[in-house]
Amino acid sequence: MPVLVGGAWRPAASNGSFRAVNPATGVPLPDEYPVSDIEDLEAALHAAARVIDEFPALEPDRLAGFLEGFAAALEARRDEAVALAHLETALPEEPRLRSIEFPRMTDQLRQAAAACRKRDWCLATIDTQHDIRSMYGPLGGPVIVFGPNNFPFAYNSVAGGDFAAAIAAGNPVIAKAHPGHPGTTRVLAEAALEALRASGLPRALIQLVYQCEPEDGLKLAAHPLTGALAFTGSRASGLALKEAAERAGKPVYLEMSSVNPVLLLPGALEERSERIAAELFGSCTSGAGQFCTKPGLVVLTRGARSEGFCDSVRRLFEGDPEAFLLDQGTLRKLAAAVTALERAGALLLAGGHALSGPGFRFENTLFRITGRQFLRDPDAFQTEVFGSLAVLVVAEDPEELAAIVRAFEGNLTGSIYSGPGDADRELHDLIEPILRRKVGRLLDDKMPTGVAVSPAMNHGGPFPATGHPGFTAVGFPASMRRFAALRCYDNVRPDRLPPELRDKNPTGAMWRYIDGEYTKGDVLAHR
Amino acid sequence: MPVLVGGAWRPAASNGSFRAVNPATGVPLPDEYPVSDIEDLEAALHAAARVIDEFPALEPDRLAGFLEGFAAALEARRDEAVALAHLETALPEEPRLRSIEFPRMTDQLRQAAAACRKRDWCLATIDTQHDIRSMYGPLGGPVIVFGPNNFPFAYNSVAGGDFAAAIAAGNPVIAKAHPGHPGTTRVLAEAALEALRASGLPRALIQLVYQCEPEDGLKLAAHPLTGALAFTGSRASGLALKEAAERAGKPVYLEMSSVNPVLLLPGALEERSERIAAELFGSCTSGAGQFCTKPGLVVLTRGARSEGFCDSVRRLFEGDPEAFLLDQGTLRKLAAAVTALERAGALLLAGGHALSGPGFRFENTLFRITGRQFLRDPDAFQTEVFGSLAVLVVAEDPEELAAIVRAFEGNLTGSIYSGPGDADRELHDLIEPILRRKVGRLLDDKMPTGVAVSPAMNHGGPFPATGHPGFTAVGFPASMRRFAALRCYDNVRPDRLPPELRDKNPTGAMWRYIDGEYTKGDVLAHR
Repeated sequence: MPVLVGGAWRPAASNGSFRAVNPATGVPLPDEYPVSDIEDLEAALHAAARVIDEFPALEPDRLAGFLEGFAAALEARRDEAVALAHLETALPEEPRLRSIEFPRMTDQLRQAAAACRKRDWCLATIDTQHDIRSMYGPLGGPVIVFGPNNFPFAYNSVAGGDFAAAIAAGNPVIAKAHPGHPGTTRVLAEAALEALRASGLPRALIQLVYQCEPEDGLKLAAHPLTGALAFTGSRASGLALKEAAERAGKPVYLEMSSVNPVLLLPGALEERSERIAAELFGSCTSGAGQFCTKPGLVVLTRGARSEGFCDSVRRLFEGDPEAFLLDQGTLRKLAAAVTALERAGALLLAGGHALSGPGFRFENTLFRITGRQFLRDPDAFQTEVFGSLAVLVVAEDPEELAAIVRAFEGNLTGSIYSGPGDADRELHDLIEPILRRKVGRLLDDKMPTGVAVSPAMNHGGPFPATGHPGFTAVGFPASMRRFAALRCYDNVRPDRLPPELRDKNPTGAMWRYIDGEYTKGDVLAHR
Repeated sequence: MPVLVGGAWRPAASNGSFRAVNPATGVPLPDEYPVSDIEDLEAALHAAARVIDEFPALEPDRLAGFLEGFAAALEARRDEAVALAHLETALPEEPRLRSIEFPRMTDQLRQAAAACRKRDWCLATIDTQHDIRSMYGPLGGPVIVFGPNNFPFAYNSVAGGDFAAAIAAGNPVIAKAHPGHPGTTRVLAEAALEALRASGLPRALIQLVYQCEPEDGLKLAAHPLTGALAFTGSRASGLALKEAAERAGKPVYLEMSSVNPVLLLPGALEERSERIAAELFGSCTSGAGQFCTKPGLVVLTRGARSEGFCDSVRRLFEGDPEAFLLDQGTLRKLAAAVTALERAGALLLAGGHALSGPGFRFENTLFRITGRQFLRDPDAFQTEVFGSLAVLVVAEDPEELAAIVRAFEGNLTGSIYSGPGDADRELHDLIEPILRRKVGRLLDDKMPTGVAVSPAMNHGGPFPATGHPGFTAVGFPASMRRFAALRCYDNVRPDRLPPELRDKNPTGAMWRYIDGEYTKGDVLAHR
């Protein structure tokens, strides 16, 4: 299969090739995809640099038009894309791929388009007294997007959230497909190229390679022409990319790992133990437990209701999963995690074994440990594992619960379930401030899976969940600001200012921060 | 002298001691200051962690009250602080220290206080449909501020811009003084402690050490309790700190180096060659050329007016400076830079030598090279040098000028001087898009020194000027967002939300982004 470099599909400068595997059968699929070597990557970088040179300021309306056209072009190929994604990931066509993830992808593209037209994202700021004006603008280099294995549509390197944010902020994108679903990615990229042609934007705005050797990926990260990187994947790969990028001074946004602790306070179990057990089971096994927001660690305190709760959860986990894991690697890591947890002294309550073939399946797996065990070796019990696996931690008392929360790493999310009214107020108020600073998104009475594409979302969090606690990978307009440089204009002549910073509001509806107040108005005559 | 650790002045756990040197005499000053060892640094980190534990949400009004009280406390000690700063830096008392930099420092503290009270900085965002709310909040760890040598007040680790931004965003600060002006820093810290006492805020909110060994500084950067770092100083130290901090997942904001290119287009020289020469000389020699925004590289094209301009500049530079350099190191680096530039083939037009004592002085120094020379070895001519030194680059033609701009590293600023009306339009439009992506602040017809403390300022820029192109070190509220984590609340019970995210606007005047529009209003009933 060809790669998309320099505005056209062309044969890869290839190190070799690979085939995706159908996780439901374990059998490789027929199409061969290239492993690009550094020649492809550099060609893509140079093509992106030419785009930036020739089109230093892409019109927001044109970018938005492209994003909308892309969403429509995708919808025209929905059947093909869903069928391929199903073959490559074994995620169910219905409802997951067709009715949930595919519309989420197109909705994200449209939200990005709307944010792009609206222009609020750039935080245009004008100080009329000093005649200094600033806004966020594109980076001056392409954004390299590394897509993950678990969302063939919504986080796809060439159509997902990072892609949409990077394009909407005016940057070229070089997508590095996840090798688990190259065919899906190819179809999405074909739709992108078609929409690009119709948009009048430069065709090399979007490029795609399928795979490269890790050392070439690091070279790409550190290349002088690179603008920034967005990575969703494992902590080990993320940290390697982070080091290479940061050493070269490149902004890098990583979504790496999270066990998404859920704290169950006594009043909550008192009120609705069975309902919470069902919610936990649903959240933990949804998508075969292959969500970055899967609750992997559940902490409760010893007491009247805790045994019953653990028992209810165990019964639920004893059922066999129908869902497949995404790949052999996930299966292998899951088995290794079970071994590691047992070795660390965790008590296996349910599951623990791979299911016999065909395909990659693993029993729903539940462990239990004491708070003291957790505190003795917090790292051992905070390793993110994809798959329907959770660890119940039963703390001795509120103090031990607080100590456990204190030992949490940075996470994407943290949930607190508490009883009605003031039932758990004291305990809540003890642990909330500690949990708050460990997580990007704090939830009350709600499981963490299901990441709404909302302007108020934070799909991010303190290291090592991500690389920087100030940025979100989901939600417009905030996610766009990752792929932007702050551009200040000091005493710049009025006709040379970008439209967003001229006296006249460019859309009549864009919010700007003028002399310390937000307004949709123009700058009043002052020069 | 004691350090300020854990809320009180106490003897340092010391590796040794140092004395500041009076740059006007070269003679060490009498007071001895300690080189703190890791014991002090860890004690400070633990004290800061206790502050965060005990006061997880510091009231913005209380923080603002402290910042204002601090400004007033400083003003009460202005004479003492100015006299000490003059002794330690040899910067002139008038107008620089007393009438420019001191008021800039207190004005920054008051602007930070105002931004803190106003609360716009936190970008409170509410999605009523999903009941998801987010805002920027403190980091959960102290901010370590490393102050530079060149601004004893305005960038001081315990009273300058980074300090003010970190405190206003609700974080404890651990200040690492610049060893060039420990006495000044001590006086500022005494005023800070006095104001802290009056404010009712925890006393360990602000701590100070004077100096530490580089390896201890790196340990501090990477310590699990550290929240983030702010550093202003040399590229070598900055890069070492960056690597240590980023490896540990700590946000680090660096202002490292910049040659602040000034491009003089033919029409500008045609119109006002003498005036520009004077502006350049003033900007380059102000503060003895020891500003991070000093124009170190001046690019013009060969033509009728360029020889006359170079001549005018040379004549200005031939005068001897009265100002002192900050320290022996600056003198030494300046001499080394002259040698390196000569070795790289630059033509010395003026100066080039240290002046005989007492004190640290160096001739105003001017070099000239061709565009071709620049392009052959762009690194050699882009090394930041403190001191009144500039390099004139005479390009052959517009294409060579564009190639030169293309070879620029990331800079804090870039200036374009052009002629009246459309005189230089074509050349401007050729180079502006290239320059734009290389600099944080773009100026028209203006020298880069003089950084207004404005909400629209960007005192930042692409690597290696700083470590990240999206952040500014100067200007409120933007600079505060460096020291903040994005905190999202998903389905959180109304009485548990921070005031900024409750339905009712906490001040009645704070701007919030609710359902895609900025408003000072409340959230309308919706639950």
